[in-house]
Amino acid sequence: MTELQLAKGVKDTPPEEKIVKDKVVSTLTNIFELYGFMPLETPILERYETLSAKFAAGEASDALKEIFKLKDQGDRTLGLRFDLTVPLARYVAMNLNLKLPFKRYAVGSVFRDGPIKLGRTREFWQMDIDTVGTKSMLAEAEILAMADSVFKTLNLNVVIKVNNRKLLNGILEQAGIDQKEEAIIAIDKLNKIGEEGVSKELKMRGYSTKQINKVFALIRNNVTLRELNIKIVDETGKEGLAELEELFSYLKSMNVKSAVFDISMARGLAYYTGTVFEAFLKNGEVTSSLAGGGRYDNMIGKYLDGGKEVPAVGISFGLVPIIETLKLEKKVESKTNTKVLVIPINTIKESLEISQILRNSGIATDFSLGKKGVSKSLQYADSLGIPYTIIIGEDEINKKKVLLRDMSSGTEQLLTVDGVVKKLKT
Amino acid sequence: MTELQLAKGVKDTPPEEKIVKDKVVSTLTNIFELYGFMPLETPILERYETLSAKFAAGEASDALKEIFKLKDQGDRTLGLRFDLTVPLARYVAMNLNLKLPFKRYAVGSVFRDGPIKLGRTREFWQMDIDTVGTKSMLAEAEILAMADSVFKTLNLNVVIKVNNRKLLNGILEQAGIDQKEEAIIAIDKLNKIGEEGVSKELKMRGYSTKQINKVFALIRNNVTLRELNIKIVDETGKEGLAELEELFSYLKSMNVKSAVFDISMARGLAYYTGTVFEAFLKNGEVTSSLAGGGRYDNMIGKYLDGGKEVPAVGISFGLVPIIETLKLEKKVESKTNTKVLVIPINTIKESLEISQILRNSGIATDFSLGKKGVSKSLQYADSLGIPYTIIIGEDEINKKKVLLRDMSSGTEQLLTVDGVVKKLKT
Repeated sequence: MTELQLAKGVKDTPPEEKIVKDKVVSTLTNIFELYGFMPLETPILERYETLSAKFAAGEASDALKEIFKLKDQGDRTLGLRFDLTVPLARYVAMNLNLKLPFKRYAVGSVFRDGPIKLGRTREFWQMDIDTVGTKSMLAEAEILAMADSVFKTLNLNVVIKVNNRKLLNGILEQAGIDQKEEAIIAIDKLNKIGEEGVSKELKMRGYSTKQINKVFALIRNNVTLRELNIKIVDETGKEGLAELEELFSYLKSMNVKSAVFDISMARGLAYYTGTVFEAFLKNGEVTSSLAGGGRYDNMIGKYLDGGKEVPAVGISFGLVPIIETLKLEKKVESKTNTKVLVIPINTIKESLEISQILRNSGIATDFSLGKKGVSKSLQYADSLGIPYTIIIGEDEINKKKVLLRDMSSGTEQLLTVDGVVKKLKT
Repeated sequence: MTELQLAKGVKDTPPEEKIVKDKVVSTLTNIFELYGFMPLETPILERYETLSAKFAAGEASDALKEIFKLKDQGDRTLGLRFDLTVPLARYVAMNLNLKLPFKRYAVGSVFRDGPIKLGRTREFWQMDIDTVGTKSMLAEAEILAMADSVFKTLNLNVVIKVNNRKLLNGILEQAGIDQKEEAIIAIDKLNKIGEEGVSKELKMRGYSTKQINKVFALIRNNVTLRELNIKIVDETGKEGLAELEELFSYLKSMNVKSAVFDISMARGLAYYTGTVFEAFLKNGEVTSSLAGGGRYDNMIGKYLDGGKEVPAVGISFGLVPIIETLKLEKKVESKTNTKVLVIPINTIKESLEISQILRNSGIATDFSLGKKGVSKSLQYADSLGIPYTIIIGEDEINKKKVLLRDMSSGTEQLLTVDGVVKKLKT
């Protein structure tokens, strides 16, 4: 073998990273289930037609260009899924007897043959939670309460910015702005580039100072729902406002304090139709969003014959920025899940027996395999980050005890096996 | 959308199946970790050269033909991994500073563009556990003890047949049989087609009656290691026998009773070099093996420059037959992990508050979203298999109680929220 390489843009996840990833995923999925969401798994391989349906990716013609395309032995064109939303839409459309609302979460690899940037790989995991089949704002409330619970459990201090596309569209309508999608993309940058920056962008798009002033009469940092209530006259805008008021009344009952209204948070994707939300770290080095989503009432129905509307709302958690944040804040750390390494000195039989007692007591136990000498075994435990070792020589066997060594302090204790179980179980 | 289909040969895993799959996977991975194995994740996309290396698939030219091939935007030829062993070999070869023994487990999708048979899909999960870097029989013992523990925990009564390729090769050598791989494949069928059937196959391959008799003088159902000890003269055969004796002495110390020596169990793959093992249900409808593996000391090293030997032993659990068995034996059942559905009757605010109390107490709680009327909500709970509902009307709120309904018996109880928590927590 001359040249052994990974495929471009993918990476291995070695044990010390995979342990953290698995922990975060299981913490999150446990909370998803607490909120009544159940797992759905769809295949990684989908028909290319399903993935490339013109409405599949919202505005994302980029996503289409980035689909990994392949053929099966029957010469059918397939693709690797690029998100978990299109497969959900396909699943709902193929299972018309599904009980609605259908509340599901999905965790799995998605693939995008795109440019490789820092922290972005061509194969990565997404975690999506969606409620399909209801227009009720209770669905949004539940998802936001769940997100709040996720970040509380992870001990991360976040703000979840909440807005509504109908409200934004109403404001733009009142200001006489036609190309609302483009304007929304500009407004989405308000917190980054300020009113001046956004004004400049809108000017470049050909809007008058009068129009732009009208926009900023309504869209200002920290504007409240109450203030807007007086100023919005457009019907769609009023509808969006009413939805937000309903949503925040539910969030109050659910004691969700991290969710706040933010008129400048718009999210890029074209397929959102109502509520949009995005979670950011309050103070910290990671500025990218940790989760985001919204309501998309028009997308799934397009997969159905006749195009019946199938309302839906969902959130996607960013596993990479969440893990990065936890590491930076030192809120997660584990090189290994193994608790103890058993090191026999001419006592293999007894040491094997003791290992089984530890394992049967629920203590993750490794056994020194093919290492010559105690010091080699201690080095091994040290390099893997195993916190304890048990050294078992003939002397210990005679005393019916074992020598427990705390690898970080180096202190040793002569204990019975029961004593070790008690100490390591906590 | 005219025709919405899955890719050929793949399937969706709906929530009621995915819940079972996730439970089995987490039961198993917990046990892997009890035995000191840590998770490794490698990408699904690998370079085609890595997958197609002539030694990658053992004898499996079939596997090569079944690789899903694709190109990335840089015109590099990639493939979807067809197993988890080749990526492990690639990982070990690319990480030469890895501490040995390297004990890892891996769970993930693999892909084979092959014919579609019952229970076989083109995209399926494998669960592999391997110890890399030691020739010690302690590695085999640990893996077999772990497998024993897995099946005990799943409450499945299995026999793990254990044999050794060196022993088989020695027996064949003594009988003057050259094409040992082919003979081994015939012998592997002893339990299915009997001595007569195997004799016939060996005759067809051109071996004499005398040679065949020599084989069966040693290979008989229920032959013991002790009996063979007297009869084996070939050096390789003796080595295999000694390895088995060492292994079974360790298994005895570890109290592993499901593992038994079986001279006729050989396993097909050419890359095994020593111990081989395979787990079968003792009595039951599922006759395919539930797990299998063995020692393959020559494969990983072939990925290294210079071809240094890297010994390894591993086991792979068959998720599909394990789940099928658990279902047939009714040892696993869950339509949902949700414990209770909260149904408000004009009490949304209070019901939302109560839902949060339940969730914060660790009870998986669904909330009736956009359902009109109690009976529709009850039907919803029933069809999803949610075992309890809580009906909250104004009357209940005034009494500071809620109405808990057991969905299977239909009995109802007026309880405080604390009372509900106590009842449902158990």
